[in-house]
Amino acid sequence: MKNALLTLIFLVIFSGGIFAQESKVSETLKVKSEILRMDRNFSVYLPPGYEANDRAYPVLYLLHGSGDDHTGWIQFGQVQHIADRVIAEGKAAPMIIVMPDANEPVRGYFNVPDGSYAYEDFFFKELIPHVEKTFRVRSDRRYRAVSGLSMGGGGTIYYALRHPDMFAAAAPMSATTSAWLRGEHKASEQQVDAFRKAYNLEAILNSASEQQMEAFKRIRWYITCGDDDFLYKDNSEMHILFRSKNIPHEYRVKDGGHTWSYWRMELAEALEFLSKSFTQF
Amino acid sequence: MKNALLTLIFLVIFSGGIFAQESKVSETLKVKSEILRMDRNFSVYLPPGYEANDRAYPVLYLLHGSGDDHTGWIQFGQVQHIADRVIAEGKAAPMIIVMPDANEPVRGYFNVPDGSYAYEDFFFKELIPHVEKTFRVRSDRRYRAVSGLSMGGGGTIYYALRHPDMFAAAAPMSATTSAWLRGEHKASEQQVDAFRKAYNLEAILNSASEQQMEAFKRIRWYITCGDDDFLYKDNSEMHILFRSKNIPHEYRVKDGGHTWSYWRMELAEALEFLSKSFTQF
Amino acid sequence: MKNALLTLIFLVIFSGGIFAQESKVSETLKVKSEILRMDRNFSVYLPPGYEANDRAYPVLYLLHGSGDDHTGWIQFGQVQHIADRVIAEGKAAPMIIVMPDANEPVRGYFNVPDGSYAYEDFFFKELIPHVEKTFRVRSDRRYRAVSGLSMGGGGTIYYALRHPDMFAAAAPMSATTSAWLRGEHKASEQQVDAFRKAYNLEAILNSASEQQMEAFKRIRWYITCGDDDFLYKDNSEMHILFRSKNIPHEYRVKDGGHTWSYWRMELAEALEFLSKSFTQF
Amino acid sequence: MKNALLTLIFLVIFSGGIFAQESKVSETLKVKSEILRMDRNFSVYLPPGYEANDRAYPVLYLLHGSGDDHTGWIQFGQVQHIADRVIAEGKAAPMIIVMPDANEPVRGYFNVPDGSYAYEDFFFKELIPHVEKTFRVRSDRRYRAVSGLSMGGGGTIYYALRHPDMFAAAAPMSATTSAWLRGEHKASEQQVDAFRKAYNLEAILNSASEQQMEAFKRIRWYITCGDDDFLYKDNSEMHILFRSKNIPHEYRVKDGGHTWSYWRMELAEALEFLSKSFTQF
Repeated sequence: MKNALLTLIFLVIFSGGIFAQESKVSETLKVKSEILRMDRNFSVYLPPGYEANDRAYPVLYLLHGSGDDHTGWIQFGQVQHIADRVIAEGKAAPMIIVMPDANEPVRGYFNVPDGSYAYEDFFFKELIPHVEKTFRVRSDRRYRAVSGLSMGGGGTIYYALRHPDMFAAAAPMSATTSAWLRGEHKASEQQVDAFRKAYNLEAILNSASEQQMEAFKRIRWYITCGDDDFLYKDNSEMHILFRSKNIPHEYRVKDGGHTWSYWRMELAEALEFLSKSFTQF
Repeated sequence: MKNALLTLIFLVIFSGGIFAQESKVSETLKVKSEILRMDRNFSVYLPPGYEANDRAYPVLYLLHGSGDDHTGWIQFGQVQHIADRVIAEGKAAPMIIVMPDANEPVRGYFNVPDGSYAYEDFFFKELIPHVEKTFRVRSDRRYRAVSGLSMGGGGTIYYALRHPDMFAAAAPMSATTSAWLRGEHKASEQQVDAFRKAYNLEAILNSASEQQMEAFKRIRWYITCGDDDFLYKDNSEMHILFRSKNIPHEYRVKDGGHTWSYWRMELAEALEFLSKSFTQF
Repeated sequence: MKNALLTLIFLVIFSGGIFAQESKVSETLKVKSEILRMDRNFSVYLPPGYEANDRAYPVLYLLHGSGDDHTGWIQFGQVQHIADRVIAEGKAAPMIIVMPDANEPVRGYFNVPDGSYAYEDFFFKELIPHVEKTFRVRSDRRYRAVSGLSMGGGGTIYYALRHPDMFAAAAPMSATTSAWLRGEHKASEQQVDAFRKAYNLEAILNSASEQQMEAFKRIRWYITCGDDDFLYKDNSEMHILFRSKNIPHEYRVKDGGHTWSYWRMELAEALEFLSKSFTQF
Repeated sequence: MKNALLTLIFLVIFSGGIFAQESKVSETLKVKSEILRMDRNFSVYLPPGYEANDRAYPVLYLLHGSGDDHTGWIQFGQVQHIADRVIAEGKAAPMIIVMPDANEPVRGYFNVPDGSYAYEDFFFKELIPHVEKTFRVRSDRRYRAVSGLSMGGGGTIYYALRHPDMFAAAAPMSATTSAWLRGEHKASEQQVDAFRKAYNLEAILNSASEQQMEAFKRIRWYITCGDDDFLYKDNSEMHILFRSKNIPHEYRVKDGGHTWSYWRMELAEALEFLSKSFTQF
């Protein structure tokens, strides 16, 4: 009888660990940015098991589109339901998903060329270090990926190409491949010119050194865009460009437009694809 | 015996963690109403993950029919089982479901025209603010929906038409489209006349400004009524009226009467339909 | 050894019967009509087993819409595939399906009131007798049903109401409930007036004797029309009228328009529904 | 022994009836061509039911690629297995599939500009009429489709664009969009120039009259090419061109190369897509 009770106790103790493996979304986290001179919002998805275990996890930076903020992937993208599902199915490894806010006051993921607002600097010099200090993240390149939709697809492409040492894999969805300058700015002609070359696919690939090209090819790419998307041309041409430059990539065109139903469908695919980098296939 | 108690203690401690991601129904909540000069009951369904995460959720106001109260959808409607299921299947986004009591002392969702009882005022000025203060609710119009059956279907229709800036979507089931005056009242002829125009589908649509019509069309509608329902005429005519006024809507007539088996079937459909507003399709 | 061979022979003989039970469509049959003074085309679906057995079968008259002819249900309606399927699933009894041509020279299923063209007379006095002489058809009312789409849905309604002793069940789909006079005619005012009353739902039901009403109620009705169909009003009003007159009927409104995808979906439902008359539930 | 023979005789007699509703592939049919001054091979797939019924069927012309002949789709493409399956699943309507040989002596589907070899003339003036005389084919445009892979994808594109009155739908797979001149020829510069314009996508679309553009848009298009296909550029550019000219089309890029596994996968999709033209959706 005593043994039976002990068994029960053990069962309960251990099943506590077993069944407590639910994922957790934190929607309203903040990181203090000295570069941007403000607090920036971001959200985090912690995978099932995060609280019960003490192991470290790979991390995906998942970028929202224009008009949304850090909560877009949570509410419209249903990231928790989808990540839970593909992880439960064994199609993706448990990973941490970080969703930063790039909405206000200047929409976008890049540095404004007049130096007034440096989001890209914030992202690499403040956000990533903050994430890696705050959560149990594996910080090697091979455990870090980036994805995003539309404007965030553009962020994905240029973050990966400009920082290839930082990402093992990149999954731009319905990406805009042009980085445009918004509103008024005080940048010099030279600065604007540099900006246009720094965020132009063809310019980057044409001027890349052999070593850079090797770095671009080391990144695993998953590119997707619906056949009814208004950005069909950006993506078709990116496929042509990558093929012509022999940059290995997966490219998908499925039925759909510039819509959340397309991105939810492709988020599942992207998590599965990116995860292969984390588990070495 | 001592061990058994320890076991129980462990069970309680760990099951807290274990079941944190289950949905939760609170049946006997109260909100203090100064407008109605009483405490009003309401029930709430909190989706799986509500306690474990800190994110905010969309909200559905789900209205009971005549003769029921705020517990009707819980007991007869099996709202927890059905919402859990469609959420688990990925057909609906996690949402909070609020079920207010509109039973005693005056049955119904509208203001009695003699000013003695103003339930509609209570709903918009006290209940919704209370809900949004108490729970992690996304309070933009695009994250708020209304549904209900029979008398609550009528509530759904007139809440949506009279407050179109408040709801992204509306799903009246087996609705009564006429708002009737009950029992004795002290309303003037003028007040009664105004009441009859304010709660009359045809009158509302015929007298609507272009701007109001646009607002009606922005609402996503799901209208359903069984072919054996005694309210077949209200709903057939509403379909005709909405078609003739070019108000986009989904309309379904399935096999069934004015019964809970019909509403349980349609609750699943409604949750899926309404959720599309919350996730941008 | 000899016995083994005999066994084989028997097997072959009997399996010939067993496996030969495929359905058969004849697309280009003709019936000589003295009433119409021409040969009329019709098509026939013979159910699996028709050739192998000597039993008689129930019969469904399936009417095409305006602009089609007797081959519409075969090519667009995929009647063979759908009937084969619901019969194989045990949802419908094997039945013969007759698809007459009502296209040229005068489109429609009724008698032109000036007496120049009497399709309805042809249908009941020549086509049905020809079918029952040519195929192994059970000729009792209880084994005969009628269905059709659009203009053929109107044919279904008025054939059933004007000849209730002929049909056990009727399934109008996306029916037009108004029988209109086409082109020029030489009918007197009186004849036109009589025509308008004879093919007007409300007039028929309002002027029906008690005995006629009983006959209408004995027919089993399945009425269906998509919520996006331009004929939404005809069908919504027919539902209201039948309910108000207490004529039992199944009524369905599903997602869809005036399209073949709607009719193929509903053909399967109609075959199952009509078949219940043939098998006594 | 005698019994064994009897058994065999019975088997033959009855199995004729038994298997009558199976599909049938004829691989080695011939049509006499006066235009090409030779007999040309072609293969035909007759759908299940063809022999048992007397109805007419829609027809798909399915073109092989360079290096194959009329048997390619049968042996490598597994057309019988795949068509049987999608028809049995109700995803495609029964149809006749004609697979002509365009291999020897001059590979390709077009007229050689020096007039020495006029395959395109043969196809439209001799093959199609022969097929429609020999088999129970519905000969209206709405019942005729064309598809093909690689060189046959190019044949599909230009047959559809140059004869839009002949095809309801077109499904080029992994198409080469350039029609090249092979080997030696005696064509004048003018003839070559005309050939290059007649078989150049951009030239055709840029010089099309409004009426021609309408005809191109009336065709239902399904375009597909794997992301690893060496013809990625032809197809990406065709998508861009069709989008920019507002020609409605479905476009798919799936994982795969210029391989039969890709075409078998897409044949099933194409049959389902093309069939929608035959059944009016």
